[in-house]
Amino acid sequence: MHSQRNIGRLSVYRRLLYGLLEARTEYVHSHTLASLAEVTAAQVRRDLMAVGCCGTPRRGYAVSFLIESIGELLDTPEPQGAALVGIGNLGSALLAYFSGRRPKLAIMAAFDIDPAKVNRVMHGCRCYPVEKLENTVRKKDLRVGIVTVPASEAQGIAEALVRGGVRGLLNFAPTRLHVARDVFVEDMDMTMSLEKAAFFARREDRKRKARRVS
Amino acid sequence: MHSQRNIGRLSVYRRLLYGLLEARTEYVHSHTLASLAEVTAAQVRRDLMAVGCCGTPRRGYAVSFLIESIGELLDTPEPQGAALVGIGNLGSALLAYFSGRRPKLAIMAAFDIDPAKVNRVMHGCRCYPVEKLENTVRKKDLRVGIVTVPASEAQGIAEALVRGGVRGLLNFAPTRLHVARDVFVEDMDMTMSLEKAAFFARREDRKRKARRVS
Repeated sequence: MHSQRNIGRLSVYRRLLYGLLEARTEYVHSHTLASLAEVTAAQVRRDLMAVGCCGTPRRGYAVSFLIESIGELLDTPEPQGAALVGIGNLGSALLAYFSGRRPKLAIMAAFDIDPAKVNRVMHGCRCYPVEKLENTVRKKDLRVGIVTVPASEAQGIAEALVRGGVRGLLNFAPTRLHVARDVFVEDMDMTMSLEKAAFFARREDRKRKARRVS
Repeated sequence: MHSQRNIGRLSVYRRLLYGLLEARTEYVHSHTLASLAEVTAAQVRRDLMAVGCCGTPRRGYAVSFLIESIGELLDTPEPQGAALVGIGNLGSALLAYFSGRRPKLAIMAAFDIDPAKVNRVMHGCRCYPVEKLENTVRKKDLRVGIVTVPASEAQGIAEALVRGGVRGLLNFAPTRLHVARDVFVEDMDMTMSLEKAAFFARREDRKRKARRVS
């Protein structure tokens, strides 16, 4: 069984491996990948063993075989579709960002309440009025929902997505979503992350000043 | 000493408390806040004790006093400034998103390589050419940097921010940043998060189908 952290790390390794492949690197040692991913080499070896990959002491792991093996776990044989709700500044930025990034995972439908934003194609994705959310998600068999609506709308939108068949949510709205236990929610809480960065920046700054004085 | 998770939770509580305040709720019990934040009541009480707040069994905690106490830890007496680098789709979305959200924490300068995007004000924030990054960050005494440039540029930008005095980074570029140990990095890895949501959505979907069959 794979944990959330395990899946997260495999996704990170794959991104790094694509980078190595582009640089025409054919083999990689666990300690190299570990240093790029900022984890331990033992961790890398455990994670890769779980997708059936063992390196050799001399050459390490074959980069393209690793990418393939991680893909067998992370990707579906058929491309998987996601729905995005809320085509504001952030929503359109995400449509652009994810467009063509992963062949096996694409935003297949976007929704908004604003009539000016719908019934057109944006960054390769068709935009629908939000009233059609539940039916479109069901018809297109989408299992992943990206929530980029204001906090006050997010819970209702999450419920409509789940009714349509969504089982995984990526939530950018600054609020907690309350959904059934068998629906996975990944929160992207940008205000919290910025406040954290600001807090630890101040702490490090104080420490540095204290070192300079002493 | 506050851990990363501790600071993250306090930031979440504060956002929820602002919501309660808007709804004119004056007192809140730890179990109510716990259920909103999806943590245990014991966790809430521990976290709040660490900022010097104790509720009473009858009325719970005074909402406005809690907000104030959390603010004393998370905020500076003086407003704290952040720099954003990369005014693309995502960068402009973040400028709009953070504009006016926290009085004590604001993006005070944005940078881009594109001459068409600089020497103007966007969502209340002045935009500069990227050559002025290090000097402007130093002159404005900014300690937090938000990185929204492509992966290939991110490391160089992070180094320039750190040379200018930044001690906390919020990184949206899909790459690991290698900086000095005393610089805090919070990664916002959207591809990883979407892949995680997709993986667990599939798993829950399979489980649900298995239950239906059996």
